Amino acid sequence: MIKTSERATKMQASPIRKLITFANKAREKGIKVIPLNIGQPDIQTPAPILEAMKNFETKVLAYCPSQGEEGLIKAFSEYYNRLNINLKPEEIIITTSGSEAIYFAMLAICDVGDELIVFEPFYTNYGGIATETGVNLKAIRTYPEKGFHLPSKETIENIITPKTKGILICNPNNPTGTVYTNEELEMLVEIANKHNLFLISDEVYREFVYDGQKHTSIMAFESCANNLILVDSISKRYSACGARIGLIASHNANIMEVVLKFAQARLSSPTIEQVGAKAGAEMDVSYFEPILKEYQLRRDAIMAGLKKIPNVICETPGGAFYCIVKLPINNAEKFAKWLLTDFNYKGETVLVAPAEGFYSTPGLGKNEIRLSYVLEVPKLERAMEILGVAIKEYQAIE
Amino acid sequence: MIKTSERATKMQASPIRKLITFANKAREKGIKVIPLNIGQPDIQTPAPILEAMKNFETKVLAYCPSQGEEGLIKAFSEYYNRLNINLKPEEIIITTSGSEAIYFAMLAICDVGDELIVFEPFYTNYGGIATETGVNLKAIRTYPEKGFHLPSKETIENIITPKTKGILICNPNNPTGTVYTNEELEMLVEIANKHNLFLISDEVYREFVYDGQKHTSIMAFESCANNLILVDSISKRYSACGARIGLIASHNANIMEVVLKFAQARLSSPTIEQVGAKAGAEMDVSYFEPILKEYQLRRDAIMAGLKKIPNVICETPGGAFYCIVKLPINNAEKFAKWLLTDFNYKGETVLVAPAEGFYSTPGLGKNEIRLSYVLEVPKLERAMEILGVAIKEYQAIE
Repeated sequence: MIKTSERATKMQASPIRKLITFANKAREKGIKVIPLNIGQPDIQTPAPILEAMKNFETKVLAYCPSQGEEGLIKAFSEYYNRLNINLKPEEIIITTSGSEAIYFAMLAICDVGDELIVFEPFYTNYGGIATETGVNLKAIRTYPEKGFHLPSKETIENIITPKTKGILICNPNNPTGTVYTNEELEMLVEIANKHNLFLISDEVYREFVYDGQKHTSIMAFESCANNLILVDSISKRYSACGARIGLIASHNANIMEVVLKFAQARLSSPTIEQVGAKAGAEMDVSYFEPILKEYQLRRDAIMAGLKKIPNVICETPGGAFYCIVKLPINNAEKFAKWLLTDFNYKGETVLVAPAEGFYSTPGLGKNEIRLSYVLEVPKLERAMEILGVAIKEYQAIE
Repeated sequence: MIKTSERATKMQASPIRKLITFANKAREKGIKVIPLNIGQPDIQTPAPILEAMKNFETKVLAYCPSQGEEGLIKAFSEYYNRLNINLKPEEIIITTSGSEAIYFAMLAICDVGDELIVFEPFYTNYGGIATETGVNLKAIRTYPEKGFHLPSKETIENIITPKTKGILICNPNNPTGTVYTNEELEMLVEIANKHNLFLISDEVYREFVYDGQKHTSIMAFESCANNLILVDSISKRYSACGARIGLIASHNANIMEVVLKFAQARLSSPTIEQVGAKAGAEMDVSYFEPILKEYQLRRDAIMAGLKKIPNVICETPGGAFYCIVKLPINNAEKFAKWLLTDFNYKGETVLVAPAEGFYSTPGLGKNEIRLSYVLEVPKLERAMEILGVAIKEYQAIE
């Protein structure tokens, strides 16, 4: 029998999606399943984006330039400038979603067998893309009790080897919701400077920062300009996940030069969505104010609900729309499946993502789940009530 | 200074696009530059595709399933069935263009250092994607004098090593325009069966076959079903290069299972274009008849023009919209640049792609160019006249 590659075998099937079959079966039985498993916002895509795409007139749906449509790049540059992030058009290349930006970043700085430092739990697709590119992710653990904030400088420096080419962070963080402090970012910049490492910052949740806090982009650290790579996407900011438009940016001209070659090897990103994304990038930042308020209410609803459940651990996350919750049970994957196959509370249950898939160190995250709060407050309140009942019931049988 | 990766350095900059700067300078000087360098068709994107995208109504531009939109997959399955290609929906995964399908195919069958057999000259992006995935392309030369048809079975078998995982063909071929005969395909199938190799067939130009010939899909060879991987795209067929919608298909369930994991790692292909592509796949095949006639006239115009130029070699290609032309000069890259910097004929010149970039063996293709015929017949006739004058003039100074 002809065989697939070893790296194909090594690829992890999506931990977020694997419970969907059970969720569908529960729904077939008439049980209402509240989804807390995936980061697909319910917020409407802004009208200017949808209208720009609808109004786009063309006779031939042609390739865009490999680096992206000129007007879109300019609009992004101006968007960053409004946020006091200094990025010139030539320092930006449009990618087919944030995923491709991560992919290009890994290709640009790592050869096969090279190492990237990440902090676990981390966004699972970093693992998938690392497998594709032959990059070894060296994961340093962060802890629910500390709100998943970064380890000490010493801990990070201890893991650096001659093969280490960079540090990859997601800020605000998926899956933990953690927003790194300026001190944490300064520490990373110091390490990057001292050890000649790249520092890749995935900031697709930049606007999702609560409690009046301000987000600091990695691009603010100009002392380290040549080492910095920014990853971004319109998916969450403009609730446009289906557009698949992201970007990679760097002050390092060598990085931009090689990223362009990778971009040329796939010709271009989709054309119509670049027109839509341009309309998005041109919107006033005030567009996001009511959305931010809504998400903060959601975060508060989730946290208030969790506080009522005995012995769960979840420090209030400062950003994004996720949290990792440590549960007073042993096996969160079995629990998540049980929620769908053997449990309901007044005809309802919840769909959660077991957190083990967000860790690369075997055995970690076994009693944790990731919750995504992209639903309206009453639904989230109801979901937390159900989760509380479920945990109590499950503890009795586990 | 912080360095990019070795594989980034190794990536080839697009050989098709590198002359564009010179073309732009020529245009600034008032010279009309006729582009024969790139495969962007001028044919209108069919109205049903553009309308379907315009009429797509959504409040939230959400992710599609990673494997693609269900209705689109069904429409593609039925499109193949109409062509007597038997592909069930579960044997198809939508990709973000044919490039991504090639990428997934390489990842699925090759580990780093594994080998894929290709026939040079070959589509340059195969080389780029191979560099990204750490795959070694083992190129076997084909010749202009033989219309770039395949070498003997023995020649192919001689290059097979324990690291060889598959053979990758493009049929009809970019950059040569060659349509492989049934005998050639049977030979490849025999080799794949005997040596347990995958056979990847990129058939994005399937409909572009002239002189009443019929195209045979690799999927017709059911004796080898588990070894076959089909790559496809709507870019050329529906003049929708900017949509970035392609697919990968196989009867091999293991291949489809691992490709789904790669697809999950980038979440989804663009949503609106999948709606457009569905409208395309549902069109009657008769849609293509006038387009095929037009392209055949173009091919004939190119060939008639080339015949008038002494000592150029180009067997009439049977498909796609490219040809590789061997010129009676020594260095086609210098010639292509000279055409833009130092030549014009009555205020006009041509932009051609030097063919060296389509070869991986150093030194090959030095006196060849690739022409793309995606312009109207009078423009092509004029372009061939200019090319003839230019060659004569260049021969005198080279």
